[in-house]
Order: sequence, then C-alpha cells, then structure tokens
Amino acid sequence: MRKHLLSVDDVTPDDVAELFATAAEMHDVQRRSVKKLPALRGRTVVNLFFEDSTRTRSSFEIAGKWLSADVINVSAKGSSVSKGESLRDTVLTVAAMGVDGLVIRHMASGAAQQVSQWTDAVVVNAGDGTHEHPTQALLDAYTLTRRLGALEGRHVAIVGDLTHSRVFRSNVALLTKLGARVTVVAPPTLMPAGVTAWSEATGFATSYDLDAVLPTADAVMMLRVQRERMSGGFFPTAREYTVGYGLTRDRLGLLREDTPILHPGPMNRGLEIAADAADAAGSAVLDQVSAGVAIRMSVLYHLLAGEGSVA
Amino acid sequence: MRKHLLSVDDVTPDDVAELFATAAEMHDVQRRSVKKLPALRGRTVVNLFFEDSTRTRSSFEIAGKWLSADVINVSAKGSSVSKGESLRDTVLTVAAMGVDGLVIRHMASGAAQQVSQWTDAVVVNAGDGTHEHPTQALLDAYTLTRRLGALEGRHVAIVGDLTHSRVFRSNVALLTKLGARVTVVAPPTLMPAGVTAWSEATGFATSYDLDAVLPTADAVMMLRVQRERMSGGFFPTAREYTVGYGLTRDRLGLLREDTPILHPGPMNRGLEIAADAADAAGSAVLDQVSAGVAIRMSVLYHLLAGEGSVA
Amino acid sequence: MRKHLLSVDDVTPDDVAELFATAAEMHDVQRRSVKKLPALRGRTVVNLFFEDSTRTRSSFEIAGKWLSADVINVSAKGSSVSKGESLRDTVLTVAAMGVDGLVIRHMASGAAQQVSQWTDAVVVNAGDGTHEHPTQALLDAYTLTRRLGALEGRHVAIVGDLTHSRVFRSNVALLTKLGARVTVVAPPTLMPAGVTAWSEATGFATSYDLDAVLPTADAVMMLRVQRERMSGGFFPTAREYTVGYGLTRDRLGLLREDTPILHPGPMNRGLEIAADAADAAGSAVLDQVSAGVAIRMSVLYHLLAGEGSVA
Repeated sequence: MRKHLLSVDDVTPDDVAELFATAAEMHDVQRRSVKKLPALRGRTVVNLFFEDSTRTRSSFEIAGKWLSADVINVSAKGSSVSKGESLRDTVLTVAAMGVDGLVIRHMASGAAQQVSQWTDAVVVNAGDGTHEHPTQALLDAYTLTRRLGALEGRHVAIVGDLTHSRVFRSNVALLTKLGARVTVVAPPTLMPAGVTAWSEATGFATSYDLDAVLPTADAVMMLRVQRERMSGGFFPTAREYTVGYGLTRDRLGLLREDTPILHPGPMNRGLEIAADAADAAGSAVLDQVSAGVAIRMSVLYHLLAGEGSVA
Repeated sequence: MRKHLLSVDDVTPDDVAELFATAAEMHDVQRRSVKKLPALRGRTVVNLFFEDSTRTRSSFEIAGKWLSADVINVSAKGSSVSKGESLRDTVLTVAAMGVDGLVIRHMASGAAQQVSQWTDAVVVNAGDGTHEHPTQALLDAYTLTRRLGALEGRHVAIVGDLTHSRVFRSNVALLTKLGARVTVVAPPTLMPAGVTAWSEATGFATSYDLDAVLPTADAVMMLRVQRERMSGGFFPTAREYTVGYGLTRDRLGLLREDTPILHPGPMNRGLEIAADAADAAGSAVLDQVSAGVAIRMSVLYHLLAGEGSVA
Repeated sequence: MRKHLLSVDDVTPDDVAELFATAAEMHDVQRRSVKKLPALRGRTVVNLFFEDSTRTRSSFEIAGKWLSADVINVSAKGSSVSKGESLRDTVLTVAAMGVDGLVIRHMASGAAQQVSQWTDAVVVNAGDGTHEHPTQALLDAYTLTRRLGALEGRHVAIVGDLTHSRVFRSNVALLTKLGARVTVVAPPTLMPAGVTAWSEATGFATSYDLDAVLPTADAVMMLRVQRERMSGGFFPTAREYTVGYGLTRDRLGLLREDTPILHPGPMNRGLEIAADAADAAGSAVLDQVSAGVAIRMSVLYHLLAGEGSVA
C-alpha cells in the first residue's frame, strides 16, 4: 500500500482485498461490547476539517479511538484559518506538533494531494471539493461485497447530482477497478461536462433514464441532492427531480426485493429517496455507516501501525 | 434498573438507593488525584447534543472518561441536522457506528423516549424540551440526601419559572417518590396550566407566596430565569421578579443558617438569587456540580457496565 | 516551582532550566512513533478557552494526552458564558467537577491571576488579554536556547505591534530574566505608552528603526499584525508597515544566514514577514510549534505529576 490514501488511485485491487479483510476483522471487533485494540496506542491522528461533517469526523474519531490512537479534532471554524493563515502553514503547524496521521476534509479539489507534499505525516483524504472521497468509496464497495460477493461483472447504478459529487467520482473509480459494470444516471443539467470522455476511457455507461437502468441493476446508489440547488431555473425543481430521478416507491418495483440500496447520507427522504426505499429490506444505508468505521479502522491500521499483528 | 434513563419514572426508590450508593463510591474516586476506573473500558458513549450545554456535556464527558469509556461529542451545529436530516436518521446513523450509549439533549419534549425506540444502544436523557432532566433530579436529590439524610418527610421548596423548567418537573417527580414534601412557588404568569391537577394527583403543594413558604423549608431550590423572558409585558420585569421571587439577602433571614440552597446553574446573580444566597454557608450549588459527575458515573456504570465489580 | 503558571514572574531561572531539561526529554518522546507517557494518568485537565485559539488549544491537548491525562475542551461559545454566567461561577463550576488543571485563555488581562484565587486546581495561563502568555515565552526561549546555547548576553530583536501583544510582554520578561539583551522595535503608533519606563527599569532597549537593529541581532522575533488595524488612519497602512517594519527579502541581507527567525503564528506572509524569511534556512517557526508541545508537556508534568520519575 502507498503511504497516503488521497485517491482511489492509491489502492490496487490487492490493496483493496487486504483492506477489506482487515475491515472484516474490525467489524467483528465493532460488534463486541469491548471494542478496544492496542494497535495505534501512542499514535496521534488529527481530524483537520475545513468543512463541517459530523458524520465523517465521528466515524474517523471512533475508528482512531478503538485502535487506541489519540485523536484530536481541529475544525477550521475558530482556527488560524479564519485569521488568514495559508493552508500550507496550517498543515505544517499541525504536523510540527508531532502528529502521525492527518485526516483532512477540505472544500478545494486537490487539497489532500497538496497537503501530502508538505508533510511527513500520513494523509488520509476525507473529501476534497468535488474531487475524491476514497474511504467513502471503500466502505461502499465493502458493503456491496458483503451483500453480493465479488463485484466482478455486477451492475451498479449511481444516481443523482453527479456535478457536485466526490462520492460519485471515487465510487466509479473504485467499482470499475474491481470489475463492476457501472451506469451513472443524472438529469442532463446535473451530468458533468467531462463525464462522457471519462466514461469512454474507463468503460462505464451514462444515462438520463433511471427507469431503463434499474431493471438490470444489482445495486443502486442514490446520491444526496442539495436542496438549495433545486431553484426551478436551470436545475429541475425538487418535484421534477423526484419524478425523474428519485428512488420512489413505484421504482422499487423495478428492483429485486433484496437489491442493495445505498446512500452516503444524510438522506433527503422524499426528495432523492422515498421513505419506503430508505427503509426497504434491501436498504444498506446503516450497513454503510457501520462499514465506515470498520473501513477507517482498517485504513488507519494499515497506514499507521508498525510491524505486528492486529490484536 | 431499566435499560434506559429517560425519565424519573424509570427508577424505583430501590434503584435510587443503589444509584446513590454507587455515586458515593464514585465521589470518593473523584476526590483522589488519580481518578480512573476501568469499568467502561472499550465502551463508547456519544454525547449527542442538539442544544448547547457545556455544563451538562462536560459533566457526562468527565464521568465517561473516568470510567475509561471512549466519549465522542456530537453537537447539532455543523452536523447533519443542519443539512435537514431527520432525528431518527441521525440517531440510527450514530448508533450504527457501534455506539454503546447515547446521552441526548434535545429541544423537543419526548425526544429521548422516541430515540430509545429506534436503537439498541442505552439512552440517557440529558434534558428534552420542558419535559425531563432525570440526572439533574438525581444529583439534586443526592446532594440533599448528603446534607439532610433521608428525604422522607422533609420539605423542599422549588422556586421560579416553572413553565419552562424540565428541572422542576423531574425534581418534583423524584422528590415526591422519595417521600419528601414539595412546595412549588412561582408568580402566577410562570405557573404552568396543568400544575394544579398534577399537584392534586401527586400530593405536592403550590404557592404564589415565597415568604410564606420559606420558614418551613428544609431546603430551597431556585430555578434559573431566562432574562429574555423578563420583558415587562405578560411576565414580571426583572426587578419585579427579584422583589417577589428572588432569594434575596432579606429572605435568607427566613431560613436556618444551614438550610441547603440549590440552583442548577448557570446562576443569574442578582436576579433569581442574590450573591449572599449563592455564597451562603448553606449554599449547595458547587456540591451539586460535584455530585453531578458522581451521579453520572453511577448511571453510566449501572446502565453500561457488564458483570463485575466497580473497582 | 510555584503552584500555578500565570506569568513569567512565576518562574526563576532555575525553574526555567528544570522546565527546559524536562522539555528536552519530552522532545525525544515527541520524535518517537509511540509517544505516550503514563505520568498524568488519572489526572484531568480542562482547556477553558474564552477566545478561539486552535493552535494553542491543540498544543495543550496533545501535551496532556501524551502524558495520559484526560483532556476536556470547553469553549466559551455555546457555554454558560453566553448565558450570562460570571467568570467566577464558570471557573468554580468547572473546578467543582473534580478537575486537576485548568488551562485558561481569556480576553481580559489578569484573568488567569484571578482564576487562580478562586480554585484549588492548578492554573496555567494560555494568554490573558494583552498581559501574558508564559508558555509562549518559554517555548520561544527554549527554541532559542537550542539554536544559540545559553542566552546570556545574546541580542534578541522583537519586532511589531507591541501595543496589542502579550507575546511581546512575556518574551521581554523571560529573555531579560535569562540574561539576554533585548531590543523591541515598533512604529511609534504601535509602541505602548508605558514601554519607556518599563525598558528603563528592566534594561531593554526600544527602537523605531528596524534596519539599525537587525545587524547586531542574534535572533529576530516577528510579531503578528492584525490586518484589521491597518486602516490607514492613525496606524500605518499594510504597505507602509511592510516597508518600515516587515522582515522583507532585502532585510534578510542584514542578518547572518543562520540567525534564528521566530514568529508565534499564524503568520501574515507578505505583511510582517516575507515568504523568503518565513522559509529561510534560519527560520525557527516550525521548531517553535514542536517546542510548544514539549514545553507544555514539561509544564503540565511539573505542575500536575506527583512524586516519581518521568518515564
């Protein structure tokens, strides 16, 4: 495995298999009432978050603590950032304290990559702009693997606002790497400009027609829609969006009963996903959350633990 | 003991005795310079606070850490809540991470009860709307017991803004359950509509006349007044409030010198409680804070520790 | 050593030597991949910050955790402070929970001193108004000592906005105590009224002419300028400031190549310090950050550990 996890490009299929195997062990730990492993005792991980994300931050914090690391939360609010310090100086400062790992969330695409060039600490990208969110892709693929077995040849539909979604980018990259067949579905106004070229180079399909895609899907991943973008002008209204691209109760009929339904959360029930879909037998939404901690434990373990066994 | 602590109704007098006995042991721990017990090592407690309360949050955080639990703070600010996620989805998400205990503070009455129906994790109500705040009532009763001995037959006056006070509700329920005689005192505009019916059913007294109640009180509990409500219209002005219902220097003369004076904090010195009262020999305000940690250690211990002894 | 660290006045030169010796041991710990010492296990430190300072708060949090203390962060935002509670009541409340150490940052000069009179807990001043910031002075002097050896007779220039700087005050007090020769340099509008009297009593020099001072400086400490004060009226404009008092690329030529350049951060690159200076071979800016953790570990260790050896 490479030193950092900045992008899905940093992991080979063999790395993914190793990460999933460790995640499965961690998942077992997670189910026990006593969850602590000593693997990262004495290591220090900083959650350096320039954007709010309680969900991702908590998941990393729990993952670090269950491995006995010291976890420090630093949010950009109330930080030196608001006093005009550069990202580079902020990162160099945090690293100079003697930190072993930096988990970074930033609004600029490419931020994690840049940060990794400035520090000797291990850097994990927890979401940079509209670019990548590799632990999300890993936890999604891990969730799918546990439901479907090997992903080779499986058909995954990714549906929603692709323009603003790093989750979509990392998922396409990882799922195609693992041999899955991917179709991305979005209204024309939310289909990014470069996606056609990318789809040709990488071998995934694009579609504007959700109803045509669902019947052959082995899994469906719904993306979060930002309500504030549903203004009725260039973009569809919320109602139009739901009619055309929401996973409604009616559309559930196009899926097998046990088809996994994923959503990275937080969900807009009634907008991109109906309550019936979110709570369907096939819904994997909470499995994703649970897998998130296991995957992040696995990532932190592989990047930060020295020689020696897990337990 | 029941699985959750959502309301004072969840504890019997025997439970209370057991909680107090453990709290007394924890209190001894608290006085030592090395405070750590291994009882909850490997257990994870999330403080899920939808309302600010540094005081209560810190008290639970210290209690959890002294029992060696991992404690994660999640505040609604900057959380998925601000992105429109439902309370149910937020709770299910946090619980799915593998959390053992959820300490919840929420602005809606009944929130803790609802939360407990959605998760297998242990739920502790840290204040829900104007409904209940059971650990506050427990720490108040514990503080009184250490001052007065058994509360059977003792007369406790609870004074202030009853309309907006969950502290009042939980205290009346617990003190009457423990056999104390309770009188609640408030100006007519801050006496809730249903209190007469409740007082008849439960057997506590109501009064508009603080000076008539104080001479027979074995303890006085002053409630916090929200300054912003003292607008001079329907409610009394701040000055009228102090004259009629403040524990002023003059009113101290109506109490015995060692009568315990309680206040849940933060205090408005000069409004509902004079500095002379807050700092009087009988003041139990800091004892309450100290008891708060001991009681919360006791509650977390009883709800979350498995088989085995405390130390 | 005294019980608290409120001011540079609380430490003698012998105390400083002892703090530096321990900091050097801690520095070695900091460089190892496993950083945990058991010295403060079971002790609880609260970071009570009434002003934002992620940098200082994180440094203390890491220092405490590496010594195995429980560290609780309490920020004034969302705290009882915003509900009108007095500083005294806030401090008494936090202390009553059973806290061993209080690290306090407050906007009022003298706050830390006051706090220490209200509590039995150990108090460490992490910056009070324009008054003192003793751990900053200690980490600066420690950084200088590791670069220059003993500071006796060395010439240190402190440059910038002296009027609003607690860093300047603590540094002058500590450096002169350690026998260094100090010259403080500022534009006339940012030279505080009492500095002449203080300089005569203490034996340090003042100057308005940076170019005249730099050639004899063994070290240069640049202070942060608040951009919002550079309004072009009474104070110099940003451009005037840089021309007259910035450590520009040209002025680097007045220094030896290895002259230590310090800055407490966050830096305004291009305003008080040019990028060439911040990144110069002599720049000690990141050494200061690293020393900050070591010094704070040393301070917490000496004030909070009982009898016994470090490791």
